[in-house]
Amino acid sequence: MNLKEMVGNKAAEFVQDGTVVGLGTGSTAYYMIEAVGKRINEEGLSITGVTTSNRTADHAKKVGIPLKNINDVEKIDITIDGADEISDDYQGTKGGGGAHLFEKMVATHSDEVIWIVDDSKLVHKLGAFPLPIEVVTFGCQQVFRLFEEKNMKPSFRKDDKGDMYLTDSGNYIIDLHLEEINKPHELATWLNALTGVVEHGLFLDCVTKVIVGTEAGPEVKNVER
Amino acid sequence: MNLKEMVGNKAAEFVQDGTVVGLGTGSTAYYMIEAVGKRINEEGLSITGVTTSNRTADHAKKVGIPLKNINDVEKIDITIDGADEISDDYQGTKGGGGAHLFEKMVATHSDEVIWIVDDSKLVHKLGAFPLPIEVVTFGCQQVFRLFEEKNMKPSFRKDDKGDMYLTDSGNYIIDLHLEEINKPHELATWLNALTGVVEHGLFLDCVTKVIVGTEAGPEVKNVER
Repeated sequence: MNLKEMVGNKAAEFVQDGTVVGLGTGSTAYYMIEAVGKRINEEGLSITGVTTSNRTADHAKKVGIPLKNINDVEKIDITIDGADEISDDYQGTKGGGGAHLFEKMVATHSDEVIWIVDDSKLVHKLGAFPLPIEVVTFGCQQVFRLFEEKNMKPSFRKDDKGDMYLTDSGNYIIDLHLEEINKPHELATWLNALTGVVEHGLFLDCVTKVIVGTEAGPEVKNVER
Repeated sequence: MNLKEMVGNKAAEFVQDGTVVGLGTGSTAYYMIEAVGKRINEEGLSITGVTTSNRTADHAKKVGIPLKNINDVEKIDITIDGADEISDDYQGTKGGGGAHLFEKMVATHSDEVIWIVDDSKLVHKLGAFPLPIEVVTFGCQQVFRLFEEKNMKPSFRKDDKGDMYLTDSGNYIIDLHLEEINKPHELATWLNALTGVVEHGLFLDCVTKVIVGTEAGPEVKNVER
């Protein structure tokens, strides 16, 4: 069993009957969705899923998870998702898959948030992984120039055909190649205030439990918030 | 001459030859665009316009203002736009016309920003006018509920047919009926950080000149920033 499958299976154990579950996007979340589907089929687990991307919605339907739109639930009990990086103090970055706006929306309205990663995602400081910024198309070049002026090494994300990558909301993504993020909260506040930025990939003070896949087995760490 | 026409004409006098001009949206900006078009035709004024809405683009073309997309100019020299409210300390709200995202983008990248209003827009404190919040459609009901919990009296903006109003970027608008905004900077910071909020109608520390239409004539006030 690979490490992603290990943590996906472990996370599915935390899903309780009768709850609303936020379903993340990406290669690790994939295994969690498989495992939740298995529990529905084998144990008769009854849950409602809320998805964070069109991809995840297609997958969840296929394994038999009943879905609702986030706009049609009161709140979400638990969200399980991957992460691109998790720092020593359990701050994270996400958005390598381009779904961080929907992922952050679902996580924000969840009582509990579990991140599932293999141990390669644990870092001392965030920033080696490019930080995605979802921006509206109007004026995006002005925002890009500002990032350049500040030496934040921006690049527009492209799709397989070399065209501008479009998010599920019809926006572009600028990836910042920062290498090291020394003050994530300051950076988040600055990005939040920037006109044209819809959402950035910094997920701060968000996670309540981290499950790390290691050769010795899954490690579950509870995070105080 | 009505007061909106008076300040529109006055503002057009500040447009200099060879500059890039941000053109606002709304009933007062309408007269400014008319006056700028007149200067182009009568004086041979040469400028490039950057527009803040599809409506303004149509109007500017009609009066003969050459246009560029905001993404195709280095920066904007001067922007002239209306405002819904201007407080004693020259903070403002905008977005009654639903164009505040594009208006803020253009203003943010302008060296100078002129607001043109009739004197009914001058208020002691902001907030009597509904504050528009542009939100992504995904999860908008969660954001709405949060505003309700905080007693911010939200309402979704509707179009003439009673359907959800869609912005030029394909988002919804939630209007907050706050009545009085005591700490605009705190409110802006909170709204900026809220997942799903694309842009709000608070324009803080933004304007460099205000032109107010009064029965006695236009009053020009320079604002230190």
